[in-house]
Amino acid sequence: MKLSPLQMSRYQYNPKLPGMLRNGISEICVQNGSATESVADQEKIKALFPNTYGKNEITFKKGQNTSAAKKQVVGVILSGGQAPGGHNVICGLYDALKATDAENVLYGFKGGPSGLLEDDYIIFDDDYINQYRNTGGFDIIGSGRTKLESEEQFAVVAEVCKKHGITAIVIIGGDDSNTNAAVLAEYFAANNTGVQVIGCPKTIDGDLKNEDIECSFGFDTATKTYSEMIGNIGRDANSAKKYWHFVKVMGRSASHVALECALETQPNICLIGEEVAAKKMSLSEIANYIADSVANRAAKGWNFGVAIIPEGIVEFVPEFSVLIAEINELLAGEKTEAFNALPTWKDKYDFIENGLTKESMAVFAILPESIQQQLFLERDPHGNVQVSLIESEKLFSELVKNNLAARKAEGTYKGKFTPIHHFFGYEGRCAFPSNFDADYCYSLGYNAFMLIQYGYTGYLSKVSNLSKPAEEWVAGGMPITKMMNIERRNGKDKPVIRKALVELDGKPFKYFEERRAEWAVETCYTYPGAIQYYGPSEVCDLTTRTLSLEQE
Amino acid sequence: MKLSPLQMSRYQYNPKLPGMLRNGISEICVQNGSATESVADQEKIKALFPNTYGKNEITFKKGQNTSAAKKQVVGVILSGGQAPGGHNVICGLYDALKATDAENVLYGFKGGPSGLLEDDYIIFDDDYINQYRNTGGFDIIGSGRTKLESEEQFAVVAEVCKKHGITAIVIIGGDDSNTNAAVLAEYFAANNTGVQVIGCPKTIDGDLKNEDIECSFGFDTATKTYSEMIGNIGRDANSAKKYWHFVKVMGRSASHVALECALETQPNICLIGEEVAAKKMSLSEIANYIADSVANRAAKGWNFGVAIIPEGIVEFVPEFSVLIAEINELLAGEKTEAFNALPTWKDKYDFIENGLTKESMAVFAILPESIQQQLFLERDPHGNVQVSLIESEKLFSELVKNNLAARKAEGTYKGKFTPIHHFFGYEGRCAFPSNFDADYCYSLGYNAFMLIQYGYTGYLSKVSNLSKPAEEWVAGGMPITKMMNIERRNGKDKPVIRKALVELDGKPFKYFEERRAEWAVETCYTYPGAIQYYGPSEVCDLTTRTLSLEQE
Repeated sequence: MKLSPLQMSRYQYNPKLPGMLRNGISEICVQNGSATESVADQEKIKALFPNTYGKNEITFKKGQNTSAAKKQVVGVILSGGQAPGGHNVICGLYDALKATDAENVLYGFKGGPSGLLEDDYIIFDDDYINQYRNTGGFDIIGSGRTKLESEEQFAVVAEVCKKHGITAIVIIGGDDSNTNAAVLAEYFAANNTGVQVIGCPKTIDGDLKNEDIECSFGFDTATKTYSEMIGNIGRDANSAKKYWHFVKVMGRSASHVALECALETQPNICLIGEEVAAKKMSLSEIANYIADSVANRAAKGWNFGVAIIPEGIVEFVPEFSVLIAEINELLAGEKTEAFNALPTWKDKYDFIENGLTKESMAVFAILPESIQQQLFLERDPHGNVQVSLIESEKLFSELVKNNLAARKAEGTYKGKFTPIHHFFGYEGRCAFPSNFDADYCYSLGYNAFMLIQYGYTGYLSKVSNLSKPAEEWVAGGMPITKMMNIERRNGKDKPVIRKALVELDGKPFKYFEERRAEWAVETCYTYPGAIQYYGPSEVCDLTTRTLSLEQE
Repeated sequence: MKLSPLQMSRYQYNPKLPGMLRNGISEICVQNGSATESVADQEKIKALFPNTYGKNEITFKKGQNTSAAKKQVVGVILSGGQAPGGHNVICGLYDALKATDAENVLYGFKGGPSGLLEDDYIIFDDDYINQYRNTGGFDIIGSGRTKLESEEQFAVVAEVCKKHGITAIVIIGGDDSNTNAAVLAEYFAANNTGVQVIGCPKTIDGDLKNEDIECSFGFDTATKTYSEMIGNIGRDANSAKKYWHFVKVMGRSASHVALECALETQPNICLIGEEVAAKKMSLSEIANYIADSVANRAAKGWNFGVAIIPEGIVEFVPEFSVLIAEINELLAGEKTEAFNALPTWKDKYDFIENGLTKESMAVFAILPESIQQQLFLERDPHGNVQVSLIESEKLFSELVKNNLAARKAEGTYKGKFTPIHHFFGYEGRCAFPSNFDADYCYSLGYNAFMLIQYGYTGYLSKVSNLSKPAEEWVAGGMPITKMMNIERRNGKDKPVIRKALVELDGKPFKYFEERRAEWAVETCYTYPGAIQYYGPSEVCDLTTRTLSLEQE
């Protein structure tokens, strides 16, 4: 068996384009919008992007194609972590490029930005591209995490482009990659290379979102995959009635993924990092909040539950961030060796106790020993604590266990608490894209080529009105500089696209907030089940609850 | 949102019955097969089941229904771990019961066998049952692990049946529960209670399988759910090209689940416990086998892979079983306290070193410290090592890491090895049943009622020819005693249904064995994707690779 039945069948799926792009290449013209300004720090951003700042937003519409006839040689790269639909961006780009002129060429640079630097590529043809239509993964050309940001790198890229006669580069990536796309576009313009750059918004984390990007691609499929699993686990919990499941989900700092999964599955608990930060919650307060749900349910005879924990949660707990900073300081440089030389954990513990402030030591002392050891023993090459490796699902279940033990001693809790831990991340990044992501991504790629054909650079391929049927989607382009502000990174001012965190006054969070007290005590689980690609539209074509609430 | 779109939609699905059951209740008659004997120990089994042994196998066919008109009051229980489709067994049972006579009554005893002992029940009606059609989980009445096996319990059950006028009990469970169903049937017959007992074969583990049971229900959906995840992970591995994923899958002792997932996803490695036992492989040999794949792939520049580890693997490693037995002996009774009193892990380690044989100490010494500690610190109430809690996915990745370090020192390996661990179990036990499981389970329940109506007891509801379309399925009943032999359990001879392990000369394993050398070195992953309930039949209606290979 070389290919699964679903893969064979998905090859036949025709992704839906926005209505305005359905009339054939010869019937797509540009409608100019207003000139743009960056969301903040306009003067600084303008100074950094003299050639590409302040351009007009544009949308496409039906009408005579007025773009100049010109042979296009386009290069495309995938940047960063996998997200379902990446293959379809490339398929849409390829189809529009070939439909415009069969002589046009599409290069795929392999393994992410490094492929562009190392001139490692394939040239797409029908046979190759057809193997990847509507499939998950980034295996079509691979991806990578090299950052394209220095002048030296840009010069190499310019050489590679010149060598192949490349007229445009499409960068499929997250906030950093799109920031870098804008910088590269400016460099190319400033140096009169004639090479255009177009970005496409990718990330399952959902944090590349603003008034111009309704959602990044992959978020829909990844959250549906996690929600399938969480729903199944909820049903298992409600059948066996004896386990509390602590489910950590990917999503980096922001809690968009956790929140969407909560809206889809209605668990007893879902922590939201942004709220924890806003309320300056301590670890003990969070544990107490969860333990309230455990105890209240136990009082009803229900010693089971489901709690969703966002991957980035601990970064948002103020006292924990302070602790991490102190630990990094305590073991900075040569101090690590002295620490490592201490023979037993007890000796190390004494060293830690002497080194931390009283406040941080109090936080440290309540951590489970496995987490304490992890903080000191598993460190990155710079000696820093690897926050992303902290098993926060186990951290919180352990803190809850201790909290419940105290309640039991006081006589206020009589239940049983048996936690089981899960972490979902890799399971969702390469799923077959949902119909939504298949359509959205194909449209992003198709649209990216139209932006190239009409001569735009430093633009993001933009498809909006996404909670409506694809027929009503709006396709166009937005200067990437419009989304930028200046942030301090590594001690320097840098122009960046602002990362979108969960907004506590946004409708998705508000919806959750209004219902969670009931969900915490009652059993309100919903069971989304597996992503469906065929069948009734209300099952197959709905996008996220987050997006539909935002656009209500 | 109370119900997911998929759940609403699945309510409308009409499960497919075997052709011979499609003509309405009045057109189902019995075709007698041969008298049966138990698979082994005939004299002993016969002596234990004087009233129910040696009955005929029967099948149903189209023809005048000749069953006696009699009001049926049936009780049903779910026993043991969840498996997708349990709800549909009850729906099929209910529909046949009500179609036969609207006055018939179906009781559901809650929380498994204990519901029957405690007389805790609901009475099903259309409104209630319709909420559970084609859904996953056992939440319709809950399940439990109480064993129904003593005369005292049987007497209580007889009282409960008498109180409600119950004419038959349907037990939905695994090998033990069906064994107990046969014993209960014999008790009822011997005591002239007039209550019949019918069993239905449930377990995701796939180990309830013999010449009469082609597969237990739930295995199809659970393995498809795990394969979806493993396929997604394989695609992620092949995109990121930097991680080795070690995936443990549920399935208890037998490796059916692991093997089926391997046939569906074509990973680099899949361990099969039965083979490890047959070849008397040591932990080091297994680690070396995996490390060969890692090293061979690294030589091609591929520092990524996927390995499937069956949950029960360590029990099959002979040297590990000896070690466990020695540890249990070493800490038996009061010795545990002396051990626990030792102040440091080093003291404990010395104690262990003195207590184990040289051979077992050699095995113990190569284990990662976390597993060493787990063996001694996490013990069941009887002081025994909890083999099922051993994180074998971490055990093997750690052993592989050490093996690779030795190769690196020798200069025979130059790659990078970064393992990531997963465990899939709870994610698949309560998924919406695949069309196959929805159809099979509904048929099992419908068929169970026909067996009741025709007066059979001690029978298993049997539906066969399952790799063919449902139209061609064969429905009937088989005396449970036919599947029994005598096994020694807890020092006593007991009649039991033999657990089916993976057969090393069976077609599924042979298929795997012929291909795995290529899979280990090349990248042959297939990506099954999410279970589909709508759409092309080749995507939605295929059952397991295991079954189709067995019935080829």
